[in-house]
Amino acid sequence: MRLLKSWVSSANSKFTEFPLNNLPYGVFSTTKLEKRCGIAIGDMILDCRAVEEAGLIKFSAGTMFKDPFWNNLMKLERNEWTRFRKEITLLLSLDTNPEKLINMLIPQSKVELHIPFVVSEFTDFWSCKYHAINAGTMLRGAENALPLNWNHMPIGYNGRASSVIVSGTNFNRPWGQLKRPNDTLPFLAPSKRFDFELEIGAIVGSKSNGPLTVQQADDIIFGYVLLNDWSARDIQAWEGQPLGPFQAKATATTISPWIVTKEALIPLQCGPPTRENELLDHLKDCGPMFYDISLTVSLTPQKGKPSIITQTNYKEMYYSSAQQIAHHSSSGCPMRVGDLIGSGTISGSQKSERGSMLELSWGGKEPLNLTNGGTRSFLEDLDTVTFHGKGTKEDFTIGFGNCTGTLLPALKYPY
Amino acid sequence: MRLLKSWVSSANSKFTEFPLNNLPYGVFSTTKLEKRCGIAIGDMILDCRAVEEAGLIKFSAGTMFKDPFWNNLMKLERNEWTRFRKEITLLLSLDTNPEKLINMLIPQSKVELHIPFVVSEFTDFWSCKYHAINAGTMLRGAENALPLNWNHMPIGYNGRASSVIVSGTNFNRPWGQLKRPNDTLPFLAPSKRFDFELEIGAIVGSKSNGPLTVQQADDIIFGYVLLNDWSARDIQAWEGQPLGPFQAKATATTISPWIVTKEALIPLQCGPPTRENELLDHLKDCGPMFYDISLTVSLTPQKGKPSIITQTNYKEMYYSSAQQIAHHSSSGCPMRVGDLIGSGTISGSQKSERGSMLELSWGGKEPLNLTNGGTRSFLEDLDTVTFHGKGTKEDFTIGFGNCTGTLLPALKYPY
Repeated sequence: MRLLKSWVSSANSKFTEFPLNNLPYGVFSTTKLEKRCGIAIGDMILDCRAVEEAGLIKFSAGTMFKDPFWNNLMKLERNEWTRFRKEITLLLSLDTNPEKLINMLIPQSKVELHIPFVVSEFTDFWSCKYHAINAGTMLRGAENALPLNWNHMPIGYNGRASSVIVSGTNFNRPWGQLKRPNDTLPFLAPSKRFDFELEIGAIVGSKSNGPLTVQQADDIIFGYVLLNDWSARDIQAWEGQPLGPFQAKATATTISPWIVTKEALIPLQCGPPTRENELLDHLKDCGPMFYDISLTVSLTPQKGKPSIITQTNYKEMYYSSAQQIAHHSSSGCPMRVGDLIGSGTISGSQKSERGSMLELSWGGKEPLNLTNGGTRSFLEDLDTVTFHGKGTKEDFTIGFGNCTGTLLPALKYPY
Repeated sequence: MRLLKSWVSSANSKFTEFPLNNLPYGVFSTTKLEKRCGIAIGDMILDCRAVEEAGLIKFSAGTMFKDPFWNNLMKLERNEWTRFRKEITLLLSLDTNPEKLINMLIPQSKVELHIPFVVSEFTDFWSCKYHAINAGTMLRGAENALPLNWNHMPIGYNGRASSVIVSGTNFNRPWGQLKRPNDTLPFLAPSKRFDFELEIGAIVGSKSNGPLTVQQADDIIFGYVLLNDWSARDIQAWEGQPLGPFQAKATATTISPWIVTKEALIPLQCGPPTRENELLDHLKDCGPMFYDISLTVSLTPQKGKPSIITQTNYKEMYYSSAQQIAHHSSSGCPMRVGDLIGSGTISGSQKSERGSMLELSWGGKEPLNLTNGGTRSFLEDLDTVTFHGKGTKEDFTIGFGNCTGTLLPALKYPY
């Protein structure tokens, strides 16, 4: 596949993250336009409500873009997702007369971006082996790093949808019940070991009822976003046994503003990793459901410059989102339109490829030197963490844009 | 407080579960009437949509009963909850001329009941000490039964809202990845250790943003339902470490069809249990937020008679729903209208008061004799489990009705 040419000239560069090949879906507003669905193309956004109101796209199911979220399109059959994408591609292609559409383009520099879909439920997995081994080694030693179940199924837990926020939304350092190894009693205090987790989230676009095969699970994935599963390591350490993470992960989960569709990612597909043991039939690999997407994390202190602290790749996953959803549905658990499925922290084999401060500073024992000055074990107040993700082919790029958030100081606790 | 008298004569018995003092909220349909909100009174249901359409109740916020769920009322301020309840009480009281209302009453025997509210997110706690000690003793021995954190905060995990169903909805035995202690490798099979858990669920009626005090948390509780947190013990045993229950609890969670409001339960309030250690300030008891509600569980085999297998009381809880929600929000986690908060399995101190088959059969080692014939370690296909809950005062009863479900055989796995 090669770069598709558009009459939006900024979309025709090898380096733009939003060429005609990408067309990611977001929600935006301007000082004049209320919140609505839009599609990124080059450095512009196509106003989907305007396109629909002008009769340039139609759906037999009725109006699709009166609401400021993408769930209405997600609810349609998969072939409607494809048809819509083809029609938008045609409207923006170099062969189309742009006359009717030019007024429906808004510069990205002029908009505010909002959460692109209503999150039904959020599930977070733990499916990258490098990360699981790093975390397990710190907790249980290298000999027992991976629990026995890890190589046989994607281990996950239900997260909290109410705290999913869009990139750029800042939040306050959480309070929590803490007890360090030498404390006699627990106490309530702001978390001192607050962390990020570099993840990618898959968005479920069709509901299901009953177990899904891996192929069926892949078929219901609508698209992907970058996802920061902010984590309070000290809250997690005290609350986590025996029922798993709860308040440690409930303060905020940040997603990038653009849904990159699964169709746009096809050129970046790759096969599964080498497996230590054969998976059970219902979880077996059945196609290239992993993706070659390079990921970077930068940390910017309050008055400092950004330092890149991690560079890794989404293809480091051990289980695909499709395998995660197949497992998720194995008990008969219904999946819903708008479910968000976190990959789990993505780390590579090298120290510079680790996807959390926990790993980068080895639990705080080896503080990380920031290339632009300072050191970090965990995040400090007013630190900004920014994820970036993109895949490149010979003459085009498919990008996610940024996923960023600033940790504000703790507020007073209301008691 | 004494029995309030109604012109609906069946509501005036000392034994009815739905006197004028109760007025629980449900959703019903008949062969003629589409799904709508209703209120139980004696053996009848008051059709709220009809009452609103006749102009007998009004809300400044607009129409409240066009949708077949109670979330619209829940979203209003708490004083509107109280005003509505007062007006309905007056409409149904013995002092009111029933002429306009008689046609808006439908016999309960003629209706189908539906889920009474849209569940936003489901959280399940583990807050009854007798149950926690029983489960912990089986897993870790009596010396280490309770984890260290247990006496300091309500331990909980996020569950799955998509699988919450209303009483009477049957479902199939789940498949899952299983590995028994002596198996070399895991395998996929229908769960063989399928169980119920006797719980009560609190329903959040107001959204929040940021930590709540225990009093604030209690203030946002709209009402309560009986809740069966069906559990596959063998799936749980293999998947549960280190991130907690996931597919073991995702097949179904059954709730009773009537929301008993917090106001109706005021006569049944009681104080907290004796505490082994002082709770931290943000979780401290601050009023009678526990309830004296007797609970029974019966098990009915396919062609058998019901046997009562458990009798216990909701006042056996160690943490109240208010304390659970205060903890739930401590990290800043936003609570939403329609969140469902499971108490955790309710067990008493005696063997006959245990709220799960796991405890009743001591992990299958001591199969339970059913009073009406047969034995059980865990549930068998076509077993029906029914919960019942009610509180009694001198001359009236406040009841929840039944919470029931039948375990159908496993379906074929689609691979």
